[in-house]
Amino acid sequence: MRAAYYEGNKTITTSACRPVAPGPGEVQLAVSHCGICGTDLHLYHGHMDHRVKTPQVFGHEMSGTIAAVGTAVSGYTAGDRVTVMPLDPCGTCPACKAGHGHVCQRLKFIGIDTPGALQALWTVPAHTLHRIPDSLSLEHAALIEPIAVACHDVRLGQVRPGEYAVVLGGGPIGSLVALVAQAAGARVVVSEINPFRIELARKLGLDVINPMETDLVKMVTEQTQDAGADVVFEVSGSAAGAEMMTKLPRVRGRVVIVAVFAKPVLVDLHKFFWREIKLCGTRVYEHEDFEKAIELAASHALPFEKLITGVYPLEGVRKGLEQMEKGGEVMKILVECGS
Amino acid sequence: MRAAYYEGNKTITTSACRPVAPGPGEVQLAVSHCGICGTDLHLYHGHMDHRVKTPQVFGHEMSGTIAAVGTAVSGYTAGDRVTVMPLDPCGTCPACKAGHGHVCQRLKFIGIDTPGALQALWTVPAHTLHRIPDSLSLEHAALIEPIAVACHDVRLGQVRPGEYAVVLGGGPIGSLVALVAQAAGARVVVSEINPFRIELARKLGLDVINPMETDLVKMVTEQTQDAGADVVFEVSGSAAGAEMMTKLPRVRGRVVIVAVFAKPVLVDLHKFFWREIKLCGTRVYEHEDFEKAIELAASHALPFEKLITGVYPLEGVRKGLEQMEKGGEVMKILVECGS
Repeated sequence: MRAAYYEGNKTITTSACRPVAPGPGEVQLAVSHCGICGTDLHLYHGHMDHRVKTPQVFGHEMSGTIAAVGTAVSGYTAGDRVTVMPLDPCGTCPACKAGHGHVCQRLKFIGIDTPGALQALWTVPAHTLHRIPDSLSLEHAALIEPIAVACHDVRLGQVRPGEYAVVLGGGPIGSLVALVAQAAGARVVVSEINPFRIELARKLGLDVINPMETDLVKMVTEQTQDAGADVVFEVSGSAAGAEMMTKLPRVRGRVVIVAVFAKPVLVDLHKFFWREIKLCGTRVYEHEDFEKAIELAASHALPFEKLITGVYPLEGVRKGLEQMEKGGEVMKILVECGS
Repeated sequence: MRAAYYEGNKTITTSACRPVAPGPGEVQLAVSHCGICGTDLHLYHGHMDHRVKTPQVFGHEMSGTIAAVGTAVSGYTAGDRVTVMPLDPCGTCPACKAGHGHVCQRLKFIGIDTPGALQALWTVPAHTLHRIPDSLSLEHAALIEPIAVACHDVRLGQVRPGEYAVVLGGGPIGSLVALVAQAAGARVVVSEINPFRIELARKLGLDVINPMETDLVKMVTEQTQDAGADVVFEVSGSAAGAEMMTKLPRVRGRVVIVAVFAKPVLVDLHKFFWREIKLCGTRVYEHEDFEKAIELAASHALPFEKLITGVYPLEGVRKGLEQMEKGGEVMKILVECGS
C-alpha cells in the first residue's frame, strides 16, 4: 500500500507504507476518501514542524470501511462504513476529568501528532469511530469532520430558529458555519472580501456581502430594526474581523471565536460591557457534533456537489495543497486513498 | 433645602434647592445617605459633560424614606424605608422589548442624565424603589447600589460554591465583587498593584496578591492542580488586566468584563479558542441584583464598618471627591443629605 508523506520543507512524497495491525481497542480502516484541510496546509508550510515527526503521514478528514478489528473492541465488524473523530484525549487532565476531553490539556490530534489518513490502511482507536448511514456516500462522508467543526461552532453559539447571524470570513469553514447556521433556522449573512470566496459562497446559496463595498454595521442595524445581530461568528482571524465582531451584536448577543488568531489583536472590550455581549471560543468538536453532522449530511440539506472542488488520487496531494495555497475558487479537495 | 451641584470645570457648590413635587408614578424621597461613586468622580473630572446639564445635582447611591407619594403609585406610603435602582429605561427599544431594560439602548441613568440624590428631597419614578428591611441601617443601605453591581457581576459570572475566582483590580468595585463572590461560596484571590488598595482589601478580609511580586499564573495553576481559575473578573480596566484575564481561566472557564475600558486593548483571542473560554460583559444591575444585595447586606455578611471610609455632611462632597482623586486608603465615602 501507499501513503502521502510530509517530509518537511514544503515537500510531499507518495511512497510505499506498511500497514499497522490494530492493537487492543483499535481498528484498522480501509480509507476511502480524505479531505485536505486548512490545517494540512499549515503543516505543509512548516508551521507544525514542532509537532510532527517527518516523514509523517497526515490527513484527518476521512471516510472508509473497517478492514480489521483489534481485541477489546465491541460493536464494530469488518465492512462497517465509518468516519473518525480524530481526537485522542489523555483522560486524566483536569479538562478530561471535567468532561471536556475534546479540549484535553494534552490532546493528541490524530493526523498531526500521530499518523494520518492519507494512506490505504489507517489504524485508529475505536473510540474515534462514527457510523456512516447507507444513504450517505463515502465521498460525501469525508466532509463530516469539517461539517462537525461547524456544528460545534453553531451549537456553542446557541443559534436558534429565526435568529440573525453574521459570519465574518467566507472561506471553507466560514461557509460551512453559515450553511449549518442556516440549517438551524437562522437568517445568515456572510462577510468576505476575497472575490473568489465571495463567488464561491454565493454559489453555495449564501447571502454574502463585501464589507469594503457595503456598510455592514448599517446594514445589520437596519435589517434587525435597530437591535443588532443575535450572533456573530469570527472566522476571519483578522484585525478587521476582531474590530467588526463587537460592532454588530445586539444587547446580550453572542460572539463566537472560530478563527485561530496568530497574535493578540485590538478588541473593544467596552462594547462587551455596554451591551452585555457574550463571547465564547470554540475548538474542534465533540461526539454529538459528529452525530449532528452525519444527520445533516445524510438529510441532503447541504450542497455537496458545490462543496467538493476536486477529487484527486493519492499522488495529487501536492497539487491539491498548491491549489489551496494559490487561493482562487477552492472549497474542498478530496483524495482517494484506496488501492 | 440644600443640594450639592456640579457646576462644570471641577467645581462643586452647595446651595439652596427647590424640592420637586412627585408627579404621577413618582415618589419624593427624604434622602438619608448618598455614597460618592467612581462615576461621580468621572463626572467631576468633566468626562460626562456631554450628558449633564450644569448646574446638576448628582449622586445615585442612596438610602432614605418616602416623603410624599404621587398619583398612580401603589404599595408605598410615606415613611417607607427605601433605596433606588437609578435606571430609567425607555421601554420601547429592542433591548427593553427583549427584557433587558437595564441596558436599554436609550437608558437614562438617574443622577447623571437626570438630577441626582445629593439633596434633601429627591423625586424619582416609583419603579426604581426597593424596600430596606428594618434590620439594615440607612447608613449601610446607601451601599446597596454598589453591592448590587457586584451581585450582578457575580450572577452573570455564574459563580458556584467551591469555585476558584480571581478578581483583577482591588478598588471599591473589585473588592465588593470579591466579597460577593466569597459570599457565594467561591475561593477568591484579588490581584492589585496599588499598595493602599492592597492594604484596604486585606483589611476587608480578602486574599490579595500583588502580581508585580507574585507570579499569578503560576500560583493559580498550582492552587487549582493545573486546571486554572473557574472565573476571572476583569475590574482593572488596564492593558495588563486584559492580558492577564486570558491566561488564568480553566478549559471552559469564564471571564467577566466589569471594568470600563476607555479604548481598545490587545486581547489574545487564541486563548479563548484553545480553552473554549467564555467571556461576558456586565453592566449595572437588574432588580433581582438589588434584592440579592439587600438580602446580603441585611444578613450582615459584609464588613460595612470597613467599607465606609467616612461620613460627611452635604458640604463635604468636594472634600470627598478630592480624597478619592488622591487615592490612598479610600473605600466608600457617604454624604448625609437630610436637613
